Amino acid sequence: MAEKGSTILGKLGVDIGFKATHTKTITEADIAAFANVSGDFNPVHMSEEYAKKTFFGGRIAHGVIVIGLFSAAMAKFPGLVIPHSLSARFLRPVKIGDTITVIAEVVKARPGIGVVIAKANCINQSGEKVVDGQVTCRLYLVPP
Amino acid sequence: MAEKGSTILGKLGVDIGFKATHTKTITEADIAAFANVSGDFNPVHMSEEYAKKTFFGGRIAHGVIVIGLFSAAMAKFPGLVIPHSLSARFLRPVKIGDTITVIAEVVKARPGIGVVIAKANCINQSGEKVVDGQVTCRLYLVPP
Repeated sequence: MAEKGSTILGKLGVDIGFKATHTKTITEADIAAFANVSGDFNPVHMSEEYAKKTFFGGRIAHGVIVIGLFSAAMAKFPGLVIPHSLSARFLRPVKIGDTITVIAEVVKARPGIGVVIAKANCINQSGEKVVDGQVTCRLYLVPP
Repeated sequence: MAEKGSTILGKLGVDIGFKATHTKTITEADIAAFANVSGDFNPVHMSEEYAKKTFFGGRIAHGVIVIGLFSAAMAKFPGLVIPHSLSARFLRPVKIGDTITVIAEVVKARPGIGVVIAKANCINQSGEKVVDGQVTCRLYLVPP
């Protein structure tokens, strides 16, 4: 069996329990920018008049913006970080002005090939879980 | 058993096989905007000098941008469309200038409660599948 420091994850210092976090306040500008990037102009995100008639009582952020915060947390992992797959559950709405913290923690690792599976929990400023999920990434040693 | 037209999905005209598509060319501006929205400044997206040393040979788009195209396709479904969960696999890189088409097709439906599971395939301009996945949404009759 290879010594720990000789594997890709060993060289990068990543193992089960390794964590990265990312925090961001979601702004109206974020929703407008993401609508333009994705083409998702669902009126529950874009129209206060429409959204206030729904059970949300006002506009909510695109759920995929919160998934973007996952990938921002994973981008803080060492090495060249390439996501292979992910899954997410949208548990509570995110509103304009909410501050979301993602904690991504490695729960499975294949040190030799550099693959990690991280659990991602996204919590709002009141401590409520808004999104949870899992992301599988492959880490490579950075280019010279 | 309720008549088809009396269920939520019956009223919205959605059943197994219902499809929506969304097509977008991914621009450099999209990558810059998404980096600002998400906080994901992974250099494989942001730095041509870094990315050209990787096996991609140049910058690639954030995978989550392509997931945003899923939600744009789902936003074309009738009614108030609220995603509950999703999963995605990143199969091939998306580069600046690639035109991605998402086809979202309902594969399971629970007409009474308005829940649909749609399979989403994302194809580039060469016909290659770049991302696939699945999204579960609940559809509601639109606010009066």
